[in-house]
Amino acid sequence: MGDPDPLRVLQKGVEGMSVKMIDISSKDPVSREASATGTIQLKESTVERIKSNGVEKGDVLAVARVAAVQAVKRTPDTIPLCHQIPIEHVSVDFEISASLLRATVKVKACAKTGVEMEALAGVSAALLTVWDMTKKYEKDEAGQYPSTAIGEIRVLEKRKGARGRT
Amino acid sequence: MGDPDPLRVLQKGVEGMSVKMIDISSKDPVSREASATGTIQLKESTVERIKSNGVEKGDVLAVARVAAVQAVKRTPDTIPLCHQIPIEHVSVDFEISASLLRATVKVKACAKTGVEMEALAGVSAALLTVWDMTKKYEKDEAGQYPSTAIGEIRVLEKRKGARGRT
Amino acid sequence: MGDPDPLRVLQKGVEGMSVKMIDISSKDPVSREASATGTIQLKESTVERIKSNGVEKGDVLAVARVAAVQAVKRTPDTIPLCHQIPIEHVSVDFEISASLLRATVKVKACAKTGVEMEALAGVSAALLTVWDMTKKYEKDEAGQYPSTAIGEIRVLEKRKGARGRT
Amino acid sequence: MGDPDPLRVLQKGVEGMSVKMIDISSKDPVSREASATGTIQLKESTVERIKSNGVEKGDVLAVARVAAVQAVKRTPDTIPLCHQIPIEHVSVDFEISASLLRATVKVKACAKTGVEMEALAGVSAALLTVWDMTKKYEKDEAGQYPSTAIGEIRVLEKRKGARGRT
Amino acid sequence: MGDPDPLRVLQKGVEGMSVKMIDISSKDPVSREASATGTIQLKESTVERIKSNGVEKGDVLAVARVAAVQAVKRTPDTIPLCHQIPIEHVSVDFEISASLLRATVKVKACAKTGVEMEALAGVSAALLTVWDMTKKYEKDEAGQYPSTAIGEIRVLEKRKGARGRT
Amino acid sequence: MGDPDPLRVLQKGVEGMSVKMIDISSKDPVSREASATGTIQLKESTVERIKSNGVEKGDVLAVARVAAVQAVKRTPDTIPLCHQIPIEHVSVDFEISASLLRATVKVKACAKTGVEMEALAGVSAALLTVWDMTKKYEKDEAGQYPSTAIGEIRVLEKRKGARGRT
Repeated sequence: MGDPDPLRVLQKGVEGMSVKMIDISSKDPVSREASATGTIQLKESTVERIKSNGVEKGDVLAVARVAAVQAVKRTPDTIPLCHQIPIEHVSVDFEISASLLRATVKVKACAKTGVEMEALAGVSAALLTVWDMTKKYEKDEAGQYPSTAIGEIRVLEKRKGARGRT
Repeated sequence: MGDPDPLRVLQKGVEGMSVKMIDISSKDPVSREASATGTIQLKESTVERIKSNGVEKGDVLAVARVAAVQAVKRTPDTIPLCHQIPIEHVSVDFEISASLLRATVKVKACAKTGVEMEALAGVSAALLTVWDMTKKYEKDEAGQYPSTAIGEIRVLEKRKGARGRT
Repeated sequence: MGDPDPLRVLQKGVEGMSVKMIDISSKDPVSREASATGTIQLKESTVERIKSNGVEKGDVLAVARVAAVQAVKRTPDTIPLCHQIPIEHVSVDFEISASLLRATVKVKACAKTGVEMEALAGVSAALLTVWDMTKKYEKDEAGQYPSTAIGEIRVLEKRKGARGRT
Repeated sequence: MGDPDPLRVLQKGVEGMSVKMIDISSKDPVSREASATGTIQLKESTVERIKSNGVEKGDVLAVARVAAVQAVKRTPDTIPLCHQIPIEHVSVDFEISASLLRATVKVKACAKTGVEMEALAGVSAALLTVWDMTKKYEKDEAGQYPSTAIGEIRVLEKRKGARGRT
Repeated sequence: MGDPDPLRVLQKGVEGMSVKMIDISSKDPVSREASATGTIQLKESTVERIKSNGVEKGDVLAVARVAAVQAVKRTPDTIPLCHQIPIEHVSVDFEISASLLRATVKVKACAKTGVEMEALAGVSAALLTVWDMTKKYEKDEAGQYPSTAIGEIRVLEKRKGARGRT
Repeated sequence: MGDPDPLRVLQKGVEGMSVKMIDISSKDPVSREASATGTIQLKESTVERIKSNGVEKGDVLAVARVAAVQAVKRTPDTIPLCHQIPIEHVSVDFEISASLLRATVKVKACAKTGVEMEALAGVSAALLTVWDMTKKYEKDEAGQYPSTAIGEIRVLEKRKGARGRT
């Protein structure tokens, strides 16, 4: 290779900062379930618009649901070290109060690793989509968002079943 | 969360418009096959160009075949509620008459759900690609497409085999 | 490179089958618009289900609309030689008769090349999504689709405006 | 098309639930900037591991930074009605306290619409990635996450400059 | 279809240029491993910058590692006829000499076909990323790269284990 | 946030390892061109198969050309800190000798940053695709690749034109 130097391993300090996708090859695929939830704080008038289908960009909850399902499937693209898991079910539910919208995403798969990151990615995408679709109504005159906030994103439950039939 | 209101479920009317990826977790993976077909109506002179490799953008059928294979693999990206299926075989065939090109795509997988949407997505991508590669010859002087049309996209056959070895 | 042979260009026959993304660098960006349309033939009972929100997978038209918008944006992924165009507007409309659903997609951009392939890709994705969401109701007892068909995919109109402000 | 019925527009109730990508074609591109922030609540011992590079999956903050940059670029894939914006700058910063990690993402572009959704998508991806890389240390014996939570995702500032040089 | 001509199969010469994703449906999934390696020739001063973290774009090796893991997962997107394989492990290692950086990627999966293309795609992405992050220091005054080169990309080893537990 | 500690910036050592997408917002878009090249070492019998269209997977050079064009467009996905550049032209050429295939990719765009990474990504994808399509003929009885190698990936030329008309 025209390089007279013997190859030397990088010094320890640098090499320690490795990055790897954990080895799951010796695990058995079992049925997995996870659900996650999160909220977005909106103006009361925005929540009213969502309920009455008065949002210019369209059906907020339907678009957010589709965004969540797609985000669940694309988790290994979004989160670099996630394994690719063939998802077998996704459901997306919304609850709403005067100024808060809660999204809950449930995911199932038969896999060698859990699906909680998939559920969390689905919740995040749903809430970001709600923000995007309602941003026109959330901005103040200076174009800022003084009250809008996404929060409380948590894993509700993670379950691991019997060895899968796959 | 600073929201005094108890969470209330969205009213029925709105909630009824749900979106979900169907639960296939209790199904067994079996071998699956599907083939789909469709046509694109072209000018006779365009068909002649395809046959004689006289298309500026290049080898129309080769590019369309690659587009079909890629589209089959990306079906869960294109069709939001489709499950991710690891495809085991794709073939793409063309038949041609004076002014019609027919694409037929066959797909195989061992999966918990069928692969007809994958075959249909492959056919659509193949035909769109043929259109794109020949659009220069199909446009009239006003830049319109008076005769070009994609049509007759159908599932030819769908088959389900014995329980897969996976 | 350790290869004693002089490099020879591939013989003409093979080389002729080239593939290239057309050079648009000397063109000016202008405002562009295109609309495309297409249909899917469904059972009357399926059309009734769509109208009455009786489809298990959810809101058929909302999901199909989202699929169309996403497909418009992803056209250069689906159709290999398409240029990347920053889309400025997409609308998706549906008309429905007893056994036919028509999708019409309109796209706008300021670009060096037209957006008709984007509109066509949007129509295709919308119709494939309608098929996917209603496939349970379209299949016969043998799991086949005797009557379902996508067709009549055409460009309605393509327009080119004044030199863009971009 | 073998359908004797005249096409009828969908009844109002259904049609009202439209979905569209807002038309920005008549706007001028101007320089845009947005920054967003958010936090993840972690165990103190997990924060210690991040600081001392003791996380098995590798360099948590470097991977989270890459995830954020990629998510900013992929915003129109994740959030269905977002326009495609060519991003000109992304920076990702972290602050850390005993049990909280804060990610701040700043985005610049010259575009016809703002980039706050891009900044928010970057923050979400950074925080999801931190969770994924540390999940082994955050789970309790039952495999649950009693204390981990993503929160406080807000837009810090959004700015619009002079007409861009593009 | 309004086309009086009987469909004729394309003449042999054209039809011979087919494209297909090989049928692996009758194979059994077994555990698979592959490792690949490759090098990038850099200036000595650039290698010094990498070692001392003096590169403006950031942590070169961390970003290259993430790029490699992502590229391994996206192999079926990059290489058109590759099958989709659920990857179970990726590791990325670097060795460095005075003016050469070597990347080695190891991949594991339980699959019906080998994972050497995945390992090669990971190596390529790692080396391209190193180039991108250091290009500022590799260019001469004319903006050219007189000495930078990626080379020696090889498969080190490919192994096939016992029938997988999947 | 229930965290009594004031937020402290991460210690310098860790923070130094930042990652950022370089700010190009103050640059003007100009016309850009870059070409890159690289080779793959193959068996003489494999090269003969490519020339005589005797490769089972299909038309090697056509598929490699499509892979290159797609990889050029997807460069910001593959190389994490690359900016998104709307590509205006891609051409892919091959030269071939007894046991070596050379791919050369030329890219044009009007952009604020150069397109050499795009050209290099195109070359890499073309060569990886050639490997994938011919791997059956390159393996020895032990399933290894004793002679196959990708190498000599270089930037041939990079040019920057007058201020773009965009």
